Amino acid sequence: MSDYIDLTGAEQSFGDTDAQREVRENDRQYVFHSWSAQGAINPLPIAKGEGVRFWDYDGTEYLDFSSQLVNLNLGHQHPGLVQAIQDQAGRLATIQPAMANDVRGELAKRIVEHSFAGARSVFFTNGGADANEYAVRMARVHTGRQKVLARYRSYHGSTSTAITLTGEPRRWANGTLDSGVVHFHGPYPYRSVFYSETPEQETERALAHLRSTIELEGPSTIAAIILESVTGTNGILIPTPGYLAGVRALCDEFGILLIADEVMAGFGRTGHWFAFQAFDVTPDLVTFAKGVNSGYVPLGGVVISEAVHQTFDQKPFPGGLTYSGHPLGAAAGVATFDIFAEEGILERVRDLGERVVGPRLREIAERHPSVGEVRGTGLFWAIELVKNAETREPLIPFNASGDAAAPFNAVVAACKQAGLWPFAAGNRLQVAPPLIISEEDLVRGLDIIDEALNVADGYVGA
Amino acid sequence: MSDYIDLTGAEQSFGDTDAQREVRENDRQYVFHSWSAQGAINPLPIAKGEGVRFWDYDGTEYLDFSSQLVNLNLGHQHPGLVQAIQDQAGRLATIQPAMANDVRGELAKRIVEHSFAGARSVFFTNGGADANEYAVRMARVHTGRQKVLARYRSYHGSTSTAITLTGEPRRWANGTLDSGVVHFHGPYPYRSVFYSETPEQETERALAHLRSTIELEGPSTIAAIILESVTGTNGILIPTPGYLAGVRALCDEFGILLIADEVMAGFGRTGHWFAFQAFDVTPDLVTFAKGVNSGYVPLGGVVISEAVHQTFDQKPFPGGLTYSGHPLGAAAGVATFDIFAEEGILERVRDLGERVVGPRLREIAERHPSVGEVRGTGLFWAIELVKNAETREPLIPFNASGDAAAPFNAVVAACKQAGLWPFAAGNRLQVAPPLIISEEDLVRGLDIIDEALNVADGYVGA
Repeated sequence: MSDYIDLTGAEQSFGDTDAQREVRENDRQYVFHSWSAQGAINPLPIAKGEGVRFWDYDGTEYLDFSSQLVNLNLGHQHPGLVQAIQDQAGRLATIQPAMANDVRGELAKRIVEHSFAGARSVFFTNGGADANEYAVRMARVHTGRQKVLARYRSYHGSTSTAITLTGEPRRWANGTLDSGVVHFHGPYPYRSVFYSETPEQETERALAHLRSTIELEGPSTIAAIILESVTGTNGILIPTPGYLAGVRALCDEFGILLIADEVMAGFGRTGHWFAFQAFDVTPDLVTFAKGVNSGYVPLGGVVISEAVHQTFDQKPFPGGLTYSGHPLGAAAGVATFDIFAEEGILERVRDLGERVVGPRLREIAERHPSVGEVRGTGLFWAIELVKNAETREPLIPFNASGDAAAPFNAVVAACKQAGLWPFAAGNRLQVAPPLIISEEDLVRGLDIIDEALNVADGYVGA
Repeated sequence: MSDYIDLTGAEQSFGDTDAQREVRENDRQYVFHSWSAQGAINPLPIAKGEGVRFWDYDGTEYLDFSSQLVNLNLGHQHPGLVQAIQDQAGRLATIQPAMANDVRGELAKRIVEHSFAGARSVFFTNGGADANEYAVRMARVHTGRQKVLARYRSYHGSTSTAITLTGEPRRWANGTLDSGVVHFHGPYPYRSVFYSETPEQETERALAHLRSTIELEGPSTIAAIILESVTGTNGILIPTPGYLAGVRALCDEFGILLIADEVMAGFGRTGHWFAFQAFDVTPDLVTFAKGVNSGYVPLGGVVISEAVHQTFDQKPFPGGLTYSGHPLGAAAGVATFDIFAEEGILERVRDLGERVVGPRLREIAERHPSVGEVRGTGLFWAIELVKNAETREPLIPFNASGDAAAPFNAVVAACKQAGLWPFAAGNRLQVAPPLIISEEDLVRGLDIIDEALNVADGYVGA
């Protein structure tokens, strides 16, 4: 085994250049990366993570304002999650989904109890993509209809139906893999496609657009409408007043199911168990992943209403997977509920969002000409960068890459240079740190962003 | 928290009727199960697993001849796997896929080195279904073609493209979710659709059928042929002599990629790292899951040839997932390679298959009129049950359920009654115990099956 890396140490020591070189070489030689041109990337070897920070092998420290991929809600190496995994590994690492298992049932119970009135059961998956695949499948069988309406500016995962639901460029190279998907526009007051002048007008017009789409696609052909309760990677788009209730009313009028995709927004990101709980709406199906156990073990799922559950009382559900309800992932999920209660996570997220992040970002927006808009809730915010605040022309074109993306990449580089790892998407810096972040670290991170925005300001009017 | 189950104990104690009742109640109330009519199932609460055995809360012991869902190759609670998970949880439970990570790279290296000449890299997924989804996606982009040929009597997973690839009844209720899939027949000498009289003739005719299918579908439209190297749930169908080499030759002739689905057959099940290694064939893409870490942590992936890797050297791969290359799953994968070497797993699987299982099953087949055929390799065998050995009429009809399945269900019940948990599929008992099974336990399990087959014999000629 001498040609293999020694993995027995509790952690890598910094400055261990041999280890760093080997990690980098193995990665470049053997690991095929998501969404990447393999020859054009140079992944950073990470030696350690703790709380809201992680370190490379040189000992460079990064304040994690991305929660990795907005999954690490309880931060790196939370002792309660680590302990739950270690305990469950020692008790019963796995058992097949057809058995009854204590942690699986326990987690399902807690999720149902914290989701929505009328929720009945949970179908567990491995992540968010298959959660959305199975939610759509349930809706299709339940309604006997095939079409699903999804929004532009959305991400729903990358397996065939999930990527077809997705309403942004990652879908493009995949063609239409699920022929039953139709896209529509949601509210986005800052860049309204409805020529709205107020959020209320945006709601009204977005709902009229949706009604028109339903009518022209054929209400009797539509199984479900799927939407991110708060849009994540595509811009932290908060529903305008009354929008979600209006979508619910349209669903009720036409016998369509409402699927709330809470993969990124759920489990505390907005200061609620699920983001839709801040709005006057009850979905039929809720999909989740990421925050359910901070991604310490792959886990996702679908919360199912009593009505949909009853459809499959005597009719078999035509789907399944080997790792459904995996005990190791479920144990970390149960621990997540305990930790949220013990540490008052939801309360602190709402407090930090309202008292610290919101005011500071609004103040930043006033000072930096490159900031077109800031918006968000809880610990889930977007800073939209523009070349021109009047015309709202984005700092870089939509779906830019290479040289065209250079101005934005320079801002991201400035953040990293200053020790902050941001969540970067399109022309936006998004703020999504672990929910356990201290006020001090939060302010430190916002200070770094504030400074980095000077780089963006340099492109304004250029 | 008093209304929740106490999960702090190292394990449940047997006969704990309160715990058992609560596990059962939570399951029935809150857990939505794969492939099931929720009101028609009564999942067994499992209290403990160890090696080749697991126990319910009453202390009833089951010898696991199914390896759960043919994933538990190293058995329940293998100390080496448990330790690897506990250690990695303490080191770094997770890090996002865009980073370089030591265990991720280490596992990718070992898989590439143990797969095939010309293998270059590994794209990690959460399980077998998404592994097949992404293998197909790579093939489509690489070839610029859309169609994929898959076999009847196959299972490739349950997300939209994977379930469409699947060639058995679990696909039926889902319609055609990926319009680019075409099914063809593979070799199955016992029930030849080609009127063959010898395995060699079956090979020749199955290849002629495949060639005809390719020609009539249009060679220039076909991206890939996907097949299980050894078909799993659908019958432990071993390739007839020269079949896989013949498929490879057709792929080469027409510029089609060959995808070997090794989700169930890989990682030692047949006594080789990958089942195709026993045949004269080199695939372009290999999908895996299950045995890579015995399913202790959800993990799957695609092994990618140098040529396909190069396609994505400067062109981005249009797919990805948050948990790609999850460190916790990867650590258990690295440990799997160590344990296989230390315990001589591959050698013992080949030895037990050839010396113990094969001879005993052939002897059983001679004595029991209900056994139409036994076939298999390594610790991967099928016992095909019939009502009539002459006509080969199955013991129960294809895709039978309810009363029609009663004769077969009685055999399964007899196995469970005698303390053996079999893998039951269609009209077949399949033998797939953990690869660590002792010869003594293996013989004990085969004794139980031998006895249970008397139940099947009672239906012969009925």
